[in-house]
Amino acid sequence: MTDTPVTHPRQPEPAHQPTDSAHQTGSDLHLDLPATGGRRAALMTALREAIRSGRLAPGTRLPPYRTLAADLGLARNTAAEAYAELVAEGWLTARQGSGTTVAERAEPVPTTRARRPSVRPGPVHDLRQGQPDAASFPRSGWLAAGRRALTAAPNEAFGPGDPQGRRELRTVLADYLARARGVRTDPDRIVVCSGFAHALRLLFDGAGAVLAAGENGPLAVEGYGLPFHRGLLARAGVTTVPLPLDEDGARTAELTGGRGYGGSRGLQDVRTVLLTPAHQFPTGGPLHPSRRAAVVDWARGRGGLVLEDDYDGEFRYDRQPVGAVQGLDPERVVYFGTASKSLSPALRLGWMVLPDHLVDRVLAAKGEREGWASALDQLTLAEFIGSGGYDRHVRGMRRRYRDRRDRLVTALAESAPHVAVSGIAAGLHAVLQLAPGTERSVLKAAAYRGLAVEGLADYRHPGLAAQDMPAADGLVVGYATPPDHAYQAALAALCDILPPPA
Amino acid sequence: MTDTPVTHPRQPEPAHQPTDSAHQTGSDLHLDLPATGGRRAALMTALREAIRSGRLAPGTRLPPYRTLAADLGLARNTAAEAYAELVAEGWLTARQGSGTTVAERAEPVPTTRARRPSVRPGPVHDLRQGQPDAASFPRSGWLAAGRRALTAAPNEAFGPGDPQGRRELRTVLADYLARARGVRTDPDRIVVCSGFAHALRLLFDGAGAVLAAGENGPLAVEGYGLPFHRGLLARAGVTTVPLPLDEDGARTAELTGGRGYGGSRGLQDVRTVLLTPAHQFPTGGPLHPSRRAAVVDWARGRGGLVLEDDYDGEFRYDRQPVGAVQGLDPERVVYFGTASKSLSPALRLGWMVLPDHLVDRVLAAKGEREGWASALDQLTLAEFIGSGGYDRHVRGMRRRYRDRRDRLVTALAESAPHVAVSGIAAGLHAVLQLAPGTERSVLKAAAYRGLAVEGLADYRHPGLAAQDMPAADGLVVGYATPPDHAYQAALAALCDILPPPA
Repeated sequence: MTDTPVTHPRQPEPAHQPTDSAHQTGSDLHLDLPATGGRRAALMTALREAIRSGRLAPGTRLPPYRTLAADLGLARNTAAEAYAELVAEGWLTARQGSGTTVAERAEPVPTTRARRPSVRPGPVHDLRQGQPDAASFPRSGWLAAGRRALTAAPNEAFGPGDPQGRRELRTVLADYLARARGVRTDPDRIVVCSGFAHALRLLFDGAGAVLAAGENGPLAVEGYGLPFHRGLLARAGVTTVPLPLDEDGARTAELTGGRGYGGSRGLQDVRTVLLTPAHQFPTGGPLHPSRRAAVVDWARGRGGLVLEDDYDGEFRYDRQPVGAVQGLDPERVVYFGTASKSLSPALRLGWMVLPDHLVDRVLAAKGEREGWASALDQLTLAEFIGSGGYDRHVRGMRRRYRDRRDRLVTALAESAPHVAVSGIAAGLHAVLQLAPGTERSVLKAAAYRGLAVEGLADYRHPGLAAQDMPAADGLVVGYATPPDHAYQAALAALCDILPPPA
Repeated sequence: MTDTPVTHPRQPEPAHQPTDSAHQTGSDLHLDLPATGGRRAALMTALREAIRSGRLAPGTRLPPYRTLAADLGLARNTAAEAYAELVAEGWLTARQGSGTTVAERAEPVPTTRARRPSVRPGPVHDLRQGQPDAASFPRSGWLAAGRRALTAAPNEAFGPGDPQGRRELRTVLADYLARARGVRTDPDRIVVCSGFAHALRLLFDGAGAVLAAGENGPLAVEGYGLPFHRGLLARAGVTTVPLPLDEDGARTAELTGGRGYGGSRGLQDVRTVLLTPAHQFPTGGPLHPSRRAAVVDWARGRGGLVLEDDYDGEFRYDRQPVGAVQGLDPERVVYFGTASKSLSPALRLGWMVLPDHLVDRVLAAKGEREGWASALDQLTLAEFIGSGGYDRHVRGMRRRYRDRRDRLVTALAESAPHVAVSGIAAGLHAVLQLAPGTERSVLKAAAYRGLAVEGLADYRHPGLAAQDMPAADGLVVGYATPPDHAYQAALAALCDILPPPA
């Protein structure tokens, strides 16, 4: 152990550099050493104080004394002696091969905050909608795609990001969406975001937003939809006007004043409508082809926009797929897609396909640089799609979800044949129709049974009048999430709480 | 080739399921087939239309005919014959082993939008501040950490995320920040976000924001700072009041009415102050220890908050590190950290360390589920930190940036010894002091020379009066980003444009 004094306080900094080897190895440890007094005593005091205050937790590994000495500008043996004394005092533990660590003490360090439970106690059975099967995430395929993507990426990929999203991703998305969803686009009209809620914020929230409240009139939405989206729009100051639903989906004729509804409801001022055409959320049907055409015609005539939320378009179990409305007129439809259902909500990746005239305005709302979507995940998803892994995953999951759906339908047919089930041709959830006025009591029974499941009532737009569309009682049953071993029991619990035939 | 007719239009859906093998292989292709007419002709028309419209680009690989037939509910030989005829017509190309693809055509598909350049033409030399060295991203270490993290992750990691952030990450961050930055926290007071701008939005932007405008009075900021942050705060409706700077950093005494400045400037209503204590941005000095203590005392007495932006705290080249102000009083300081400088802005990961009473309010502003930060990147970063890779990377980069800094200082000492350079003890940039009134002409000379570099003027708060702090002319020189081979030339260009001694 040699002493290398480094004590020239006025010399310019570069001359004081610690040796490279000491700087390259080890870890960082911040210590406030008083400027005066003996160095060894000061270091010991600082270390004791850091341990006593709980800042250095028991088991924390300290940097090698050489590293610490170099970082603090101390002689090596000063640091070595301080470590040795603190080991002797019981503050630190030194073990051959594992370095010096903070000693475990009998007395636990008090934390200032009651520990939040990392996982809130969940229900016994969980049939809530909205999530794909987390257990089916293609870990190895994703990791392999990540390795290929990050190895091949240019250096600039690790610099500040283009707010439009990585070109690699937009290029494969343009091809994929054209091929699989009937979307007409090129990579330059796609903007990557963190998911549908982020896309809504970019369009509606804030002074620079493309469709900021006050400039574009109210937004027409489907009479049933996700309360989270309604809340987000309301907080952005956007007024939403509900469109009634029937067996053919949203009654788009109301937009043009059909049946006098529009006039009395403020629909005459609407220039933008938000729809889930492939799979109405949550009731589950596709928008009728005549209405798909009609809403695009309306948007053309009105100078308006159709917002198409294609949240689970990949998962359709009927043979005739429903393509994107966007394909009918790319200049009048904003298409929204996401990896949250097809892969995982843990990814935080979604995409907007925009009319040409909106691209620059959405980019302006997003800011000069990518502030949200991870470039690393974007590159990995591009590789995953481009290599065919995404198609394979989606097709595999489609089969899995279809089997799940079939088990639900079979269980109901056996145990509750009087309960009609709808919305089963696509998606990750179904709707069980209940007799009027029974939804609340069925949900109570579910809660009592430990079954988490949602009723239709929460999805209903509060502005939807009963004469325009009677309240529909029902359960929204998500069948994608329960683990395999728990699914049969969840179905049994579901059948148990359904009311007997009237 | 066997014909398997699937033509029972009224039978319930499950009976129509395509064979599993057909569903598992291949890719998705969306086609709108007219409901009437011959199936083969309808399929051919749909494919021709998809190719003609450019939706299916030349080279796009079609699914195997068996897969397409299964997906569309057609007989296999119907699909096979349609493919064969379109090959004969020149629309498709069939090659042994590579399947059927859309034929390359002489005529390119017109896109509706002029192609945006993926990379804007850059300057010849780039010494702009704000970014770490993209070429030094630890690709292999990151990939290895990702493999370990994703392999070990529980299934729930791929489900909807905790808005506070993954516990794995918060746990290692609490230890790391305590050890390396002197932060006092536990994992329960950390909230993960997409970076500092996202954290500012969570605190200030929107009706539910913790420090929403109108409720908390104006925000005191440093007299020089990032215009992007000022703009973000202004859009959120927050009034900012500048604190003058001197050689000891922000003049925090102004907050308590020292020198009469506060009274005349609205500082008497301030309850929150945003600072960069470790390394004032952009002028580069640390906040003087007496002011660190004073600002925390002010916050205690005022019932206010100090917001501590520790954007590059890891990169200090002097021996005595400057710990976080947060350690002085965790209940009065919000600490902000980020991976954008230490690793890469491509990651979109940052963290806030909050006083206990703010945790639930920030989580409420963030929403019920994680909508921003990728759980996969969070898990990977947790593993990267926990395994020591982050410390090794930071220490290696510190050495690299210090060498860069030394080359800058040496070049200036040789070619422009009359130019004073400051802010070099830490961070990824330095400030070159210019004679009053010369900044604009020097920046013009830089632009003429193809050198991208920023002046101090843009960083000055427009509300800062000359009598409180005279305008400082200077260049903000970032030395982290140029590739090694380009750095010397960039330094030469910089020395070239500096004015001669007065």
